[in-house]
Amino acid sequence: MKAEILSIGTELLMGQIANTNAQYISSRLPGIGISVYYHSVVGDNPVRMEECLKRSLERSDIVILTGGLGPTKDDITKEVTAKVLGLKLVIDEKTMEDIRTYFARTNRIMSENNIRQAYLPEGCFVVRNSNGTAPGCIIEKDGKTVIMLPGPPRELNPMFDETVLPYLAKKTNDRLISKFLRIAGLGESQMETQIMDLIDNQTNPTIAPYAREGEVTLRITAKCTSEEEGEALIRPVLETIRERLGNHIFSENNEEMEEVVGKLLLENNISIAIAESCTGGLVSSKLTNIPGISQVFPGSVIAYSNEIKKELLNVSEDVLRKYGAVSSECAIQMAQGARERFKTDLGVSVTGIAGPGGGSDKKPVGLVYIGLAYEGGAESKELRLWGDRLKIRNIASVNALDLVRRHILKIIN
Amino acid sequence: MKAEILSIGTELLMGQIANTNAQYISSRLPGIGISVYYHSVVGDNPVRMEECLKRSLERSDIVILTGGLGPTKDDITKEVTAKVLGLKLVIDEKTMEDIRTYFARTNRIMSENNIRQAYLPEGCFVVRNSNGTAPGCIIEKDGKTVIMLPGPPRELNPMFDETVLPYLAKKTNDRLISKFLRIAGLGESQMETQIMDLIDNQTNPTIAPYAREGEVTLRITAKCTSEEEGEALIRPVLETIRERLGNHIFSENNEEMEEVVGKLLLENNISIAIAESCTGGLVSSKLTNIPGISQVFPGSVIAYSNEIKKELLNVSEDVLRKYGAVSSECAIQMAQGARERFKTDLGVSVTGIAGPGGGSDKKPVGLVYIGLAYEGGAESKELRLWGDRLKIRNIASVNALDLVRRHILKIIN
Repeated sequence: MKAEILSIGTELLMGQIANTNAQYISSRLPGIGISVYYHSVVGDNPVRMEECLKRSLERSDIVILTGGLGPTKDDITKEVTAKVLGLKLVIDEKTMEDIRTYFARTNRIMSENNIRQAYLPEGCFVVRNSNGTAPGCIIEKDGKTVIMLPGPPRELNPMFDETVLPYLAKKTNDRLISKFLRIAGLGESQMETQIMDLIDNQTNPTIAPYAREGEVTLRITAKCTSEEEGEALIRPVLETIRERLGNHIFSENNEEMEEVVGKLLLENNISIAIAESCTGGLVSSKLTNIPGISQVFPGSVIAYSNEIKKELLNVSEDVLRKYGAVSSECAIQMAQGARERFKTDLGVSVTGIAGPGGGSDKKPVGLVYIGLAYEGGAESKELRLWGDRLKIRNIASVNALDLVRRHILKIIN
Repeated sequence: MKAEILSIGTELLMGQIANTNAQYISSRLPGIGISVYYHSVVGDNPVRMEECLKRSLERSDIVILTGGLGPTKDDITKEVTAKVLGLKLVIDEKTMEDIRTYFARTNRIMSENNIRQAYLPEGCFVVRNSNGTAPGCIIEKDGKTVIMLPGPPRELNPMFDETVLPYLAKKTNDRLISKFLRIAGLGESQMETQIMDLIDNQTNPTIAPYAREGEVTLRITAKCTSEEEGEALIRPVLETIRERLGNHIFSENNEEMEEVVGKLLLENNISIAIAESCTGGLVSSKLTNIPGISQVFPGSVIAYSNEIKKELLNVSEDVLRKYGAVSSECAIQMAQGARERFKTDLGVSVTGIAGPGGGSDKKPVGLVYIGLAYEGGAESKELRLWGDRLKIRNIASVNALDLVRRHILKIIN
């Protein structure tokens, strides 16, 4: 079954944003045996949009439109689609009620424009939007499936996963089952060397590595007709990779590092406090993305200044003078200070030079120390990173969390 | 002059990566008066690629192809393009030499496949690649311009900026000058109501709103023949919008909220400390994205637990018992506590319920208080947000920074 994605929005054609919606949808369709053959982007222009939609309907079974469902006048996706399909737009009372509730809840004033959002093509299946006012919809017409979803990813993603994907899954028998291994502590080429023979010799499943900041993702994809068959194809390959990469693999379920660490902390009831310098709250912010983390996380200190490092984290004047704030010694004292201050099982710290300024020959931009303190001990790790400020901060934060992960694995096994 | 971007690559259609090349190129073309009307993505399939390229040549003056120029067998962009344009591929000796030099320099072994990369359409203008082995090229044929560039952004970006952009700039006298206003404190439809007449009646410049989390972007675009003319066309519209929206406009230069606040703090030498509960470090992390911020930012306390709110931020037992941690009173005490603890001019705080758990009828998920403390006073603001945990945290953090911005604007004016 062939699908394509037609994204609407001048902001895409102006390069204001990347088309992450097409990426998101494309990453999910192969799993239910639907192949994506084309992505297209066109502006909020009725003539060009109509022409693109007609072409899409000629060559694909399923056309997924994203964007242009907002309350403003230049949002015309619904109007153009209804016209091309020969359908009327009619008010959907349930949607109208949803929109009213949304405005009441958020204490905002509903404008005339928002009422336009309750109009949908007659006979469509409404895809409810619990994160915004624009509903989506699914239309079956002349053997084609046309789906419209709003542009903001926070709205589109849950609507797609919860409603559209299960709806489309019923249409096919083919499956592509993928497993995503997330790997930290090994570079892409380093990892590739270790499993090159597998990558080269596998045809089903296939294995493809892909580098991210501070980590590598390995995609294992099996062509199959059922989930069981797919799992059976993947299992022996997965076992070989596990043997070779060991606990460099931090997730076999495509989880973020903070999800893995959050789960380990919660499941083992291990509390943690964080002391951050160069990452400035990024490690804490990632960890607190995890719902329920408050059970094991009382708080952090962001200590940018040396004064605060001394006052709140008990870093000694001596260490700062002798080794400086960017040192293994300071990282360890920060981690210990956080652990004592917050009375937690673990303390983790980051101190370094994120740039662009502040580097020297001896301590260049990208030099980062992460520290970990626990009952009866402490350790640190030196990182020499490369890239801009955001990249250095991000890789440092992944490494800090990875240090926590490896420590917990050691003590629970 | 109309351009479109045709990107080749199965990794895009599989959703492994987003089409950031299309975004990059699109963001640069309007500045030289070239409008991008379409983006398309197609896989490494000769039939579909040919069909897409023919369509692109029918409707656009300039077609920019990205990807599929690598050394492997499934890289067929050059072959398909040469066929569609009726051109032969011939070896380019200069390119062959470049490729040999590249391999010598990086100490890698050249394969037979790499020689394929030295073949280019006859009569083309070669775009040299100093970061890889795949050259790009520009072809002029039958009034159309066809450009091919390699997929890796690290190779494409400098090739585009250094060679392609100056080449294309000579083709036009038209310019498109855009100004991006970033607006906080007003919803998209609320804002539109205030400037609807302008949006409706403007033809040059045009005005288009675009919603983001916690803010709205307004793009004002003028068609012109010089930067001066563009600025002159935009100026009166900009002034009218300024009059109506006042300091809801936080940036006229497409800056992020944290960039604006960071600049205001640094320029006015105003120091700040942050106390975060539900945002868990996100406000601090955003602010510390700004290089040099350490001059005015000593640190933050992330106080998830009530114990830490009391101990490090001096929140009173009384307030916690009477009003709870999610209250205006607690937000104010947290901000005051941070300001005192870090001895700064300002203290800003966030406390709320980010969900998915922890809400109640009286205090639902999405209820957030932000607090601000300054010399001689303090204030707070209640937010009722909607969405998932990440969205609530993100909007809360934008609002906290916005509160700081508005306060600084008040005291410096």
